[in-house]
Amino acid sequence: MERKGIQGMIILGDTTLANPDLAYVVGRNLARGGIYFRRLDCKPLLLTSLLDVENAKEGRVRHVHTFTDYGFEKLLLEHGQAEAYPRLIHAVLTQLGMEGKVTIAGRNDLAWGTHLVNRLRTLGVDVFGESSPTVLEVARATKSADELHEIRAVGNKTSRIVHRVLDKLVSMKRKRGRLFLGGEVATVGNVKRFISMQLAIEGLTAPEGTIFAIGPSSADPHNNGIPSAEIKERKLIVFDIFPQSESGYWFDLTRTFVIGSADKQARTFFDVVLGAQEAVLTTLRNGLRGQSAMSEACDVIERHGFRTVRDIYDGKAKKISSGFIHSLGHGVGLTIGERPYLSLQNPDPLKTGNVVTVEPGVYLPKFGGVRIEDTVHITRDGCEPLSNTRKEFELS
Amino acid sequence: MERKGIQGMIILGDTTLANPDLAYVVGRNLARGGIYFRRLDCKPLLLTSLLDVENAKEGRVRHVHTFTDYGFEKLLLEHGQAEAYPRLIHAVLTQLGMEGKVTIAGRNDLAWGTHLVNRLRTLGVDVFGESSPTVLEVARATKSADELHEIRAVGNKTSRIVHRVLDKLVSMKRKRGRLFLGGEVATVGNVKRFISMQLAIEGLTAPEGTIFAIGPSSADPHNNGIPSAEIKERKLIVFDIFPQSESGYWFDLTRTFVIGSADKQARTFFDVVLGAQEAVLTTLRNGLRGQSAMSEACDVIERHGFRTVRDIYDGKAKKISSGFIHSLGHGVGLTIGERPYLSLQNPDPLKTGNVVTVEPGVYLPKFGGVRIEDTVHITRDGCEPLSNTRKEFELS
Repeated sequence: MERKGIQGMIILGDTTLANPDLAYVVGRNLARGGIYFRRLDCKPLLLTSLLDVENAKEGRVRHVHTFTDYGFEKLLLEHGQAEAYPRLIHAVLTQLGMEGKVTIAGRNDLAWGTHLVNRLRTLGVDVFGESSPTVLEVARATKSADELHEIRAVGNKTSRIVHRVLDKLVSMKRKRGRLFLGGEVATVGNVKRFISMQLAIEGLTAPEGTIFAIGPSSADPHNNGIPSAEIKERKLIVFDIFPQSESGYWFDLTRTFVIGSADKQARTFFDVVLGAQEAVLTTLRNGLRGQSAMSEACDVIERHGFRTVRDIYDGKAKKISSGFIHSLGHGVGLTIGERPYLSLQNPDPLKTGNVVTVEPGVYLPKFGGVRIEDTVHITRDGCEPLSNTRKEFELS
Repeated sequence: MERKGIQGMIILGDTTLANPDLAYVVGRNLARGGIYFRRLDCKPLLLTSLLDVENAKEGRVRHVHTFTDYGFEKLLLEHGQAEAYPRLIHAVLTQLGMEGKVTIAGRNDLAWGTHLVNRLRTLGVDVFGESSPTVLEVARATKSADELHEIRAVGNKTSRIVHRVLDKLVSMKRKRGRLFLGGEVATVGNVKRFISMQLAIEGLTAPEGTIFAIGPSSADPHNNGIPSAEIKERKLIVFDIFPQSESGYWFDLTRTFVIGSADKQARTFFDVVLGAQEAVLTTLRNGLRGQSAMSEACDVIERHGFRTVRDIYDGKAKKISSGFIHSLGHGVGLTIGERPYLSLQNPDPLKTGNVVTVEPGVYLPKFGGVRIEDTVHITRDGCEPLSNTRKEFELS
């Protein structure tokens, strides 16, 4: 931050939920959020509601006070909400001697945020924005030991869920050529209900849903699966699960398989994708560029005759609809998609402490797709998967 | 909007999740969000990623295009992310002839949002913010028939869950003076696990948790409940559940009860709170001021000798720790707390189509609390609860 000439930062929000920057600096879930003040050369100060203050004190910030301590209710009564917040922030900045440039962050409604920034400026605060990567995005990309611990815990739970789903699928009854789950014809819908129950048992949620796509729908990497689709043998199934724990940390894991035996084309897809993933996993380490990891995956996949998004990047194609049609991976932490990216656009070297997905895939419209994904931790000499989940292709 | 001299609005975000304004105008869940342009005298235009475009077309906006259609990738390649977004937005605004004042909204990182607004201004866009209530907050407060349908659906599911939890509690086994749930000593933790399973079965999530607080912890309206606390007979239990459905809509429901028979003080609390709620439910209608509804509840509760927050409002006390220590209610929709508020601070009349909670409570530290809450729809002549959930005090 010092390089940018910043004296400090303000991070705010009306909740820490879906507000990764505020959650990151606070280290606790605050139902009503708060305002975090950080002068670079001083310890941070956090203001919260009376409701959240005790909880906040158990988080990362030592100096926690309430809005009430700073006379917020009086400001509200005298000046209304539109004025109370900018005046409160201005008063605290003055008290902290933060009269230089400050950044502002935290997820908020832009209508309100723009009003707030305007008013702070008329009050004399030199507040400014940042384009991506922001200081906080960069900070959040490198995980601390505590964060790795949290992510690994979500990984272990996710892995247990995947194994239970695989076991459940293996245990399905066959009757007159159809598969049955708990007395009903097996469909994507009732498998998803089973997955939801397992998430509940593990105390996880899936705010962005779960992908369980069978047959042709598995060819679209973002098709969540059609609830009424019947589960059938020999069809490709992409199961991509990305849950969040109460701690706020996410995990991301994909397995692709068929029930029973696979045909030759499906097997080829699987072997190519697994080969690409294994090649990347042996290459990833501190210092490797994000784009080099992606290139490695493209090399393996192209060697087997499939197209990759490199064709677009190199100007050989405008778009591609089959082959490896997305990037290799992304960071995971307090969000399910963050820095660093394993994509051709990312020339920056990976760093020890990054947590990224490694998820090559190969897709063919009307046929199906294969994607294999693990979430791994970048270390000085390599990378370490944060869960241990079997990669079985033919379930029987 | 016309009164404010606004020519149009931009609403944006990288997801519709936890982004109520974008979700409201789009009417669909878009994993990667989008940018919504609305010139007041024209139909809106929505830009999304290739991934979300088909889904977006089934939502509320008729004109849906992709970022790619507007050459976003080229802008990205030539100018980088910091420049690509403001240039894209500027180009679309120019094409739509939106050269007057525009508001900007949608939940976004303020660091990035402030950067974006700054750049748009240097490109000549007259973009400005709004303090609360924003145009969209006001619009969202009045629910359409479709929205009421969605909220009622969440209400029915929530009601089923509450009934199943009550039934489960009644069925607990007693052994040597202790209560057992599924073979284990009954605790808040295992009741909550049961609640999570029921949420999963109904396809709901509870992103902000669930309150299940017993005994003294029920005296704190925002104590979620201590997982290790044992469930015991004759103790006040506040069960406050506020789930969200995949449609994005929330519901809010609280019941307070004891297992077995209650003592006299607990019974008094319950009767007073139920009386206050019933009084409000017969008074609520289109045209009643939010503060009048709150006063009605305070009248009933004060008549029974309890303090209320009116003492603070009237300057009789600086804070109160027992009695009716919070407001009567709040709006529910794409968020769990929105306009209109049933509080002493809200002089505005309620309107047909508002959906609000009615949740009086009485609390006594170290003893416990009672809160009874329903989510209701304001109509021309009265109000209609959006779920039908029993209000049993003594479970046996």
